[in-house]
Amino acid sequence: MTSRPHPFDPLSPTEVATVAQAVRNFFSPENILFRVITLSEPPKNDMVKFLEREHAGKPGSSPNRLAMVHAYLAKDFHELKVNVHDGTIASDQVLVGKHSHIDPEYMKEVEHACLQDAQVKAAISALELPEEAKVIIEPWAYATDGMNDMTSRTTMCWFYMRISDHPDANYYAYPLQVVAEVSESLQVTKVYRLPSGENESMNDDIGPFDRRKIHSSSEYHPHLATCQRKTTRALNVHQPEGPSFYIDGNRIEWEKWTMRLGFNYREGMTLHDIQYDGRSLFYRLSLSEMFVPYADPRSPYPRKAAFDLGNDGAGVNANNLKLGCDCLGHIKYFDAWHVTSSGEPLKMPNVVCCHEQDDGILWKHTNFRTGNAVVTRSRLLVLQTIITVSNYEYVFVFYFGQDASIHYEVRATGILSTAPIDIGDKVPYGTIVAPGVLAPYHQHLFCLRIDPAIDGHKNSLVVEESLPMSFPHKSNPLGVGYVTKADIVDEEQGLDLSHSKNRVFKIINENSGNKTTGTPVGYKLVPCYSQLLLAHPSSYHARRSEFGEHAVWVTRYSDDELYAAGTYTMQSSGKEGIASWIRKRREEMFALKSEDASLVRDRDIVLWHTFGSTHNPRIEDWPVMPCEKMVVGLKPANFFDGNPSLDVPISTQDRNRSVLVTDADADADKAKL
Amino acid sequence: MTSRPHPFDPLSPTEVATVAQAVRNFFSPENILFRVITLSEPPKNDMVKFLEREHAGKPGSSPNRLAMVHAYLAKDFHELKVNVHDGTIASDQVLVGKHSHIDPEYMKEVEHACLQDAQVKAAISALELPEEAKVIIEPWAYATDGMNDMTSRTTMCWFYMRISDHPDANYYAYPLQVVAEVSESLQVTKVYRLPSGENESMNDDIGPFDRRKIHSSSEYHPHLATCQRKTTRALNVHQPEGPSFYIDGNRIEWEKWTMRLGFNYREGMTLHDIQYDGRSLFYRLSLSEMFVPYADPRSPYPRKAAFDLGNDGAGVNANNLKLGCDCLGHIKYFDAWHVTSSGEPLKMPNVVCCHEQDDGILWKHTNFRTGNAVVTRSRLLVLQTIITVSNYEYVFVFYFGQDASIHYEVRATGILSTAPIDIGDKVPYGTIVAPGVLAPYHQHLFCLRIDPAIDGHKNSLVVEESLPMSFPHKSNPLGVGYVTKADIVDEEQGLDLSHSKNRVFKIINENSGNKTTGTPVGYKLVPCYSQLLLAHPSSYHARRSEFGEHAVWVTRYSDDELYAAGTYTMQSSGKEGIASWIRKRREEMFALKSEDASLVRDRDIVLWHTFGSTHNPRIEDWPVMPCEKMVVGLKPANFFDGNPSLDVPISTQDRNRSVLVTDADADADKAKL
Repeated sequence: MTSRPHPFDPLSPTEVATVAQAVRNFFSPENILFRVITLSEPPKNDMVKFLEREHAGKPGSSPNRLAMVHAYLAKDFHELKVNVHDGTIASDQVLVGKHSHIDPEYMKEVEHACLQDAQVKAAISALELPEEAKVIIEPWAYATDGMNDMTSRTTMCWFYMRISDHPDANYYAYPLQVVAEVSESLQVTKVYRLPSGENESMNDDIGPFDRRKIHSSSEYHPHLATCQRKTTRALNVHQPEGPSFYIDGNRIEWEKWTMRLGFNYREGMTLHDIQYDGRSLFYRLSLSEMFVPYADPRSPYPRKAAFDLGNDGAGVNANNLKLGCDCLGHIKYFDAWHVTSSGEPLKMPNVVCCHEQDDGILWKHTNFRTGNAVVTRSRLLVLQTIITVSNYEYVFVFYFGQDASIHYEVRATGILSTAPIDIGDKVPYGTIVAPGVLAPYHQHLFCLRIDPAIDGHKNSLVVEESLPMSFPHKSNPLGVGYVTKADIVDEEQGLDLSHSKNRVFKIINENSGNKTTGTPVGYKLVPCYSQLLLAHPSSYHARRSEFGEHAVWVTRYSDDELYAAGTYTMQSSGKEGIASWIRKRREEMFALKSEDASLVRDRDIVLWHTFGSTHNPRIEDWPVMPCEKMVVGLKPANFFDGNPSLDVPISTQDRNRSVLVTDADADADKAKL
Repeated sequence: MTSRPHPFDPLSPTEVATVAQAVRNFFSPENILFRVITLSEPPKNDMVKFLEREHAGKPGSSPNRLAMVHAYLAKDFHELKVNVHDGTIASDQVLVGKHSHIDPEYMKEVEHACLQDAQVKAAISALELPEEAKVIIEPWAYATDGMNDMTSRTTMCWFYMRISDHPDANYYAYPLQVVAEVSESLQVTKVYRLPSGENESMNDDIGPFDRRKIHSSSEYHPHLATCQRKTTRALNVHQPEGPSFYIDGNRIEWEKWTMRLGFNYREGMTLHDIQYDGRSLFYRLSLSEMFVPYADPRSPYPRKAAFDLGNDGAGVNANNLKLGCDCLGHIKYFDAWHVTSSGEPLKMPNVVCCHEQDDGILWKHTNFRTGNAVVTRSRLLVLQTIITVSNYEYVFVFYFGQDASIHYEVRATGILSTAPIDIGDKVPYGTIVAPGVLAPYHQHLFCLRIDPAIDGHKNSLVVEESLPMSFPHKSNPLGVGYVTKADIVDEEQGLDLSHSKNRVFKIINENSGNKTTGTPVGYKLVPCYSQLLLAHPSSYHARRSEFGEHAVWVTRYSDDELYAAGTYTMQSSGKEGIASWIRKRREEMFALKSEDASLVRDRDIVLWHTFGSTHNPRIEDWPVMPCEKMVVGLKPANFFDGNPSLDVPISTQDRNRSVLVTDADADADKAKL
């Protein structure tokens, strides 16, 4: 690590401590509950100038280094900007009606309060659970649904039980038919019975737990699950010369790529100033938000709708990755620093792993006249982070290719969030995965924020389609012709995918032309085709997750627009996201307050891609789900002068050292069986 | 290899020789040109009985072993069925107006005849090529386009030049503005100039080659291309205990999967009798056909439209795979046997490789209450074959997962087929990738044939969509509910994809229920979203490639329906493919000739998936194209009792032996730089 931090570097532990002390000094002598101390990235205008100088080898002075702080004083939620260098408070704002992200310490208090509550005790007693049962309460942030919503912090408590002594027994296998609501001040305000059949609503009639639901097939922990198969033999990755990447602090250099790794409590891994072969491609890449609404329309289930970034935080929920378990090969781990509630720096070890992977053939050609084959293998740089959000996990990976492609992959795994159902009942919005266990349908909607800098910061979005030529027509006499039609988008908007038109979204730089093709240089989005939000446009789900309405959005860059569903998603009531920003600027333009607020052609723009899965569980997703993969790509489109991986070394056995399996090996193996 | 062949085993060299001799005896004393001697797979009715006995451990007698032979006697194209055991001729048919697949020996004669032709010589002379130029003729099978089509074999000769001494110099970088047509009897019937600009048509005015087109940036061979990068360090796969697969002849056993590998001249790799954990899943998986029509409407370009399986053959064009180049790790190679023109067995070594691959996280869960993480890594079984079709290559891979998923991947690589264009001209159906080099737009349409046997041979196709519940409605008061709606398909038909409805295609067995979910067992298709055929429905392109009209087709099983564009695609005139089969059976049903010919519910059915890419070249695809990947999945959908990979061993560093990269390593590396 260089001594002076780079402007994109996350705050060091010393910096976190300095900022905490500055906040303590500012508020003295109040009791402060710290939630966040994180880098407030410099305004882009400043950074662009800094990066220009840095790329030219003359970095000069860094922009002002600021921290963003979330802290509670008594019940007041403060957001502060603090100068990291001298501890001065640049701003302090009390956010009325907003909440900081979920506080696990508070959630533990909620669990405790709930278990102590007389009404809850009565309900549990009415369940007549097996003697060995231990009741587990899973507290969830409250999703605004339009039914007597509170603005004060409210927690939904879902009940499960564990009937094994083993602490890792899968309690999601025993959802109980009870739910409780807990107020900000830890009062249980309601306890009631969950519905079972399709036409049943919630009620007070809590009856005994049906012991026919007790089963043994829902364990995933190796101490409890079925025997592990013995057939999978070891596979190791050897890199005798070490990895091909070079790392200096948060700067990563690999195969003509350079970039800077960032990390914050909310988005987790972020990437900055991404270049290939010294040419600028992206200013910033990040997962902006994700929304997980459940399909069950029966109250109180509409209150299950999680913003896993805005409410939970991909950073604070990042796993401590383990060598040889989460990653294979030669692994560089990155740590992150968060803050304790009292303002101490909190180390989060191994939140990102960086390694390489072989990805099969990169390119090949055999000249059939000479019989000479030329083949290269594809090597990828992998940057991976994994998060746990209660029952569920997400693996987030950026893959960088030698062909100048970037792929962003999300893998969904973990345990389904379950609900109780009476034996014999069924509903059309869930799958029964074990006796009495309903795995409700739900959606995962991710929004990838792509802040491009394709050969510079003024970019345009092109929507290109492949369309048949007119027929019959003299220029298409045989009916086989097709052409591409490209439209440059003028105004901020949401757009949708069309595989049937081969609709391609390209970010181009109209000021930088490709000399050979005669077209502007560009990068194209290879989208993930997925269903968008199913909730009705007038529902709170839709109002709160505006990015779920379209697959692709283009906006004018704004320093404070990082989160597609708005900055404060906890119990939000909507109209704070991407569609609202666009509407507001359009209104400004109509009101002549701004000549060009909405215009996005040849401007500093941001592209947002909404994708995900409509996850109607299969029983194969139970009791723990094999990864469901979703992939988005970014690929050069007439950006370079040719195949950027043309110079990747030709593959040879001398380098790759594979091993031939002979029939004799097979016979020997058979003898062993 | 067991002594008696399995009914699915490809013919052994001895069997090929036996069959060739039987054909020689039958036709004596005529001069026979052999094109194909391959296994004629037994009728499914017989095989199903055999497999039932075999799965029960009592295989009994094999069905009659037949070979299918393509042979020419003088000009007559014969298709024979020959009993492999005793050499009797079961059938012999002369196919009038049909052609066998492309004959490379004949194509060499075409090239030679063309170069000797006086008209061609005059045309080349008129080009005034550089002295060092060597003219290369690329002969293509003729695509029926409706313009004075011949039924006799016709070859389109496209001209290129090589101006380097190196035999692997990229001649596609110099497409010449000349084309010739050659007749069956090797007569050059036409020589003319190719069009350049959009509004130009072919003509006789062949002028000098524009020497401004000479350039140096189009080489891919390492002897000629730019220096290879030195930054990619070695990555080796070690499998200290050997691979996890067991192979006996063509039977492959790996991680609860069993299957049999087949291979033939046309489809290349085929898979048979695929089971997981002893349960039947698929009777046969194969690539059925692919079609590559070009978008350029100017004659003679509509004659560029290749059926790479029906015309060229994925089997006969399969690469001889090299250890450590085409595959990494512990590799088992499979050979195939073809036949020479004189009827000798011809060995095709290493046409399929079988190996394992690590695929990152398979599943993971961290219990946030105990902090205990349980993680497994995904191991894949890879079966790969690579083909070269003139300028282009395709990598075809089946991946088998421990979670009982199958993925079929196509990677397109190789060199773009190019056409000449005058400097300064441009057209809306191609990209200029080098001076005077047009890479015309084209499509790759693949058709994967899926012959299911989901818990047996009587299966049904379900089309399931995720749809919002009515709103406002008393059962959906908050507007968040959605449900799945499943329709079982009754009749043979083509269907299309809809990501906006999350349309899912499931193959189910209505006679086999999942006890827990209460639904029929099934496997779902995870489709590859792609644009379908752009050529006009009335064009010959569309008539010849019927499968390109819809993304998913379901048909009743028929022994002779393996090839989605028909059995004889060479110069075909259409109406021989999947839509025609369906139409014919529907007509039979209407005419009361068959009660149920078209019905597909609870029948022996076949699913066909058409996918591909509308390939509008980028300059990054030149001079050799980084792989473009397309992936199709088959995944269990309430088939098992739970996650089938639950028993995969937990990942440990002890087994996986990864290496930690420390900051000290990074510093040492930096010092080396």
